[in-house]
Amino acid sequence: MERKILLTDCPDETGLIARVTGICSRHRLNIIKNTEFVDNQKSRFFMRTVLDGEFTDDFLAEVKESLPESASIRLVTSCRKRLVIMVTKEIHCLGDLLLKNYAKTMNFEIAAVIGNYNSLRELTEKFSIPFHLVSHEGLTREEHCRQIMKVIDAYAPDYIVLAKYMRILTPEFISAYPNRIINIHHSFLPAFIGAKPYEQAYNRGVKIIGATAHFVTEHLDEGPIIEQDVIKVDHNFTASDMAEAGRDIERMVLDHALNYVLDDKVFIYGNKTVVFRN
Amino acid sequence: MERKILLTDCPDETGLIARVTGICSRHRLNIIKNTEFVDNQKSRFFMRTVLDGEFTDDFLAEVKESLPESASIRLVTSCRKRLVIMVTKEIHCLGDLLLKNYAKTMNFEIAAVIGNYNSLRELTEKFSIPFHLVSHEGLTREEHCRQIMKVIDAYAPDYIVLAKYMRILTPEFISAYPNRIINIHHSFLPAFIGAKPYEQAYNRGVKIIGATAHFVTEHLDEGPIIEQDVIKVDHNFTASDMAEAGRDIERMVLDHALNYVLDDKVFIYGNKTVVFRN
Amino acid sequence: MERKILLTDCPDETGLIARVTGICSRHRLNIIKNTEFVDNQKSRFFMRTVLDGEFTDDFLAEVKESLPESASIRLVTSCRKRLVIMVTKEIHCLGDLLLKNYAKTMNFEIAAVIGNYNSLRELTEKFSIPFHLVSHEGLTREEHCRQIMKVIDAYAPDYIVLAKYMRILTPEFISAYPNRIINIHHSFLPAFIGAKPYEQAYNRGVKIIGATAHFVTEHLDEGPIIEQDVIKVDHNFTASDMAEAGRDIERMVLDHALNYVLDDKVFIYGNKTVVFRN
Amino acid sequence: MERKILLTDCPDETGLIARVTGICSRHRLNIIKNTEFVDNQKSRFFMRTVLDGEFTDDFLAEVKESLPESASIRLVTSCRKRLVIMVTKEIHCLGDLLLKNYAKTMNFEIAAVIGNYNSLRELTEKFSIPFHLVSHEGLTREEHCRQIMKVIDAYAPDYIVLAKYMRILTPEFISAYPNRIINIHHSFLPAFIGAKPYEQAYNRGVKIIGATAHFVTEHLDEGPIIEQDVIKVDHNFTASDMAEAGRDIERMVLDHALNYVLDDKVFIYGNKTVVFRN
Repeated sequence: MERKILLTDCPDETGLIARVTGICSRHRLNIIKNTEFVDNQKSRFFMRTVLDGEFTDDFLAEVKESLPESASIRLVTSCRKRLVIMVTKEIHCLGDLLLKNYAKTMNFEIAAVIGNYNSLRELTEKFSIPFHLVSHEGLTREEHCRQIMKVIDAYAPDYIVLAKYMRILTPEFISAYPNRIINIHHSFLPAFIGAKPYEQAYNRGVKIIGATAHFVTEHLDEGPIIEQDVIKVDHNFTASDMAEAGRDIERMVLDHALNYVLDDKVFIYGNKTVVFRN
Repeated sequence: MERKILLTDCPDETGLIARVTGICSRHRLNIIKNTEFVDNQKSRFFMRTVLDGEFTDDFLAEVKESLPESASIRLVTSCRKRLVIMVTKEIHCLGDLLLKNYAKTMNFEIAAVIGNYNSLRELTEKFSIPFHLVSHEGLTREEHCRQIMKVIDAYAPDYIVLAKYMRILTPEFISAYPNRIINIHHSFLPAFIGAKPYEQAYNRGVKIIGATAHFVTEHLDEGPIIEQDVIKVDHNFTASDMAEAGRDIERMVLDHALNYVLDDKVFIYGNKTVVFRN
Repeated sequence: MERKILLTDCPDETGLIARVTGICSRHRLNIIKNTEFVDNQKSRFFMRTVLDGEFTDDFLAEVKESLPESASIRLVTSCRKRLVIMVTKEIHCLGDLLLKNYAKTMNFEIAAVIGNYNSLRELTEKFSIPFHLVSHEGLTREEHCRQIMKVIDAYAPDYIVLAKYMRILTPEFISAYPNRIINIHHSFLPAFIGAKPYEQAYNRGVKIIGATAHFVTEHLDEGPIIEQDVIKVDHNFTASDMAEAGRDIERMVLDHALNYVLDDKVFIYGNKTVVFRN
Repeated sequence: MERKILLTDCPDETGLIARVTGICSRHRLNIIKNTEFVDNQKSRFFMRTVLDGEFTDDFLAEVKESLPESASIRLVTSCRKRLVIMVTKEIHCLGDLLLKNYAKTMNFEIAAVIGNYNSLRELTEKFSIPFHLVSHEGLTREEHCRQIMKVIDAYAPDYIVLAKYMRILTPEFISAYPNRIINIHHSFLPAFIGAKPYEQAYNRGVKIIGATAHFVTEHLDEGPIIEQDVIKVDHNFTASDMAEAGRDIERMVLDHALNYVLDDKVFIYGNKTVVFRN
């Protein structure tokens, strides 16, 4: 018997839970876990239903028929997702992902790593993961992004993770992987948008620094936020101490965000997310 | 139209969500929020369903009929709960509750305060809440508890809150208010059970101190935990600094626990709780 | 024997600690606690020295002589500070301060409360603290601020605390009390500067909300930050839930900031602070 | 010019800071950072002084002469410490340390890894670190510990880190490396001492789980605590989910504790520590 996850996202109306769970019941599917949320401001309904049992083709058809026409319904199989990781030179996020890939403690496998420098090749190859150098030198941003896309597409990943990839992506690149690019930003967005957030934080004299994992959209640092966290700092921290301290929190926030996304616990709507953490 | 909360707690089996939400739907009750949890180890099902609509007598009967015989089902009206607060001499938790009662920002009204000293009479009466001194001097524990019970029962409270009440209660007292007595304990239980937890924490040289809100059972400091939180300390903290720092966290943990309990978000089973925080 | 705090703030050079502590030693003053910090970027030295003993007039003169000419040196007596609190309508920060004033658990006494509405008069007067209504109706901002200044000045407070005072102050007002006005801002600055931060946070879909206590300067929400903290939120929080959840963190951040300021643990320089938390 | 750290630990008396910093000054040593703490209960003085300059032999002699006879004074050179790591089967703490060793972002180099199983050999050797299997099979605890000691002593490490080493060490082993063995314990000590803390935590229904890094003494789980931290859990967490969630916090607490120890920021006295975090 297979385990699947039914993801429902539609305009809210009375009786939605009863309709969907009723169909599950009639198909003798056991509901392992059911989580729902209604955004009353936008009158929108979200539900994640983890199911155990034997699925027939008409199950999904019946669910669709029972819901408003504009509903988005997905039945996904709970499985290990394929990732391509993009990096520049910083080691901490990639290192953590390589370790978790090796230990198989998270719900993904790393298909490949792409860097615009060779700095992280050695580490990547220790773990027998292919590393591709796609240098931006001498290329326009468009050409560079297209070369990366070619590498990515050969691996057909579920998601692309920007693990401290420090260059801006083209609209063409972003629109090729809608809702499938995850970035870790080194600040508590929307504070310190843009470059050198730790220097900005130091100059402002903040007492807390943070990190933000978000989906990448055309608007730099403004995509839907998946997860955020912070740590306390004080006057003893130089800008570079803040960056150092920030590494732990970046790595942890990226981990948590990936856990949610890869377990199909995240809905995107408008520029926001619904994250069923449990 | 009234808003009610249906609380379901029964052995787990397939189709429970569909059955209950189906009945809601047939009665044209709108589900505002539905949260469920299955304890797989104990095969037990918990669900909290917030409903809007017109309730008829047969609604609850139908729900009962659809569920296993041993199910515990409650349909409660979302309303301000009545509290009696018990105190000794410390001001911080009582003060906070009096302020929130005055500001009406939480889901309770304070019917009365009972103290075994007069220390908090003045503050209580500033807010026009009756204060009852029930001194333990010259009384056996049994006699003292019975006198308190007499005062409590005159107010018929929904819950009794021990806001730093520093004496042990009798089994008779505890069994008179099953699952209705909430205590704030000044440590991260199960560490530092018993008296003088801050002194114990200081002597052990811990780097964190905490607080625990729990239901009171016959076993001292061992009732079902509702909420816990901690703050960081270091070698600069004396035992009395720890107690001082602990006050903020005690007050906040008690607040959160009360929020959950008074909004009917807490199930008790075995010696544990299910708390639907959202 | 008196306890005093020596606060030294001067350009950094070799031997500063030895010079100052040497003078203390020669004067037979016992150093209870000594904390120092050097900002290497700005080459600036900060030291807070808690002293026990009998002080003679020439002690401070000797210290001054031993330090660079531009040094700022203050010898303050550790004592309860006088506060005037300014409010609008929100109760949580004022209520907390009134309670702590009543319980005498913090290092201040509240001399008076000034509101631009009468909403908090009743609560203030319960605690026998004078409440002054200074309505802004029909007045220019300049006139309004001047009327408030008149009330404040009659009390000669050490600090003015804006406990959710929701109006902008004039440059004249601010420059009358340099480094003596403390504000609690309802967001994690510099995110969500300006009005309605919780609505901004909700619309951005952040997963964390915060609060910032800072000194007030002419630049709105941009004065030196004293303390910040955050709590986690999620999609279940409406803008008004965020505001509600934010109250706890606002109150606690303001408390911590006041503790630091009133214990003379805070140095201001440039637009930043050095806060010796211990 | 060399940078050194002077660590002073002696009975408290008036003038200690002045004496030590005065000698530094006369030797033209620049104080980069000075941190001190007095335990008033035990009347004990601790100071950490980071110094820049040219050191002569008589500097330390002069300092010694100026302090009480029983003073413990150490002048250490700030340098990368040598570690031997001991493991059983769990990967997360070792993996993190191997990565940090590779990235050279922390103040240590790993000389060798010793395991009582071969599970972590492959990972260790990827990073070109020697891995020694010392199986406990067929050996008494005493024999096993002695074999490990032989391997350790060949590397002459500064510290031994138990990165989830799951066996009890003999008193002989422990006394061979006084104040030099650091353990990461998978609970918030002193709660859940001993084996299977996550199962204990699950059964107690706690809402928070933690981790504790401590020095190892003869008393199991009772050595001086260096660092602790916690994360929130709820009823959704099984014992194994708690263990999984605990891994992040174990790894982070161990990291922080090592940072403090390896930067010579930790004093041990009685069964407690003074940790100068900044």
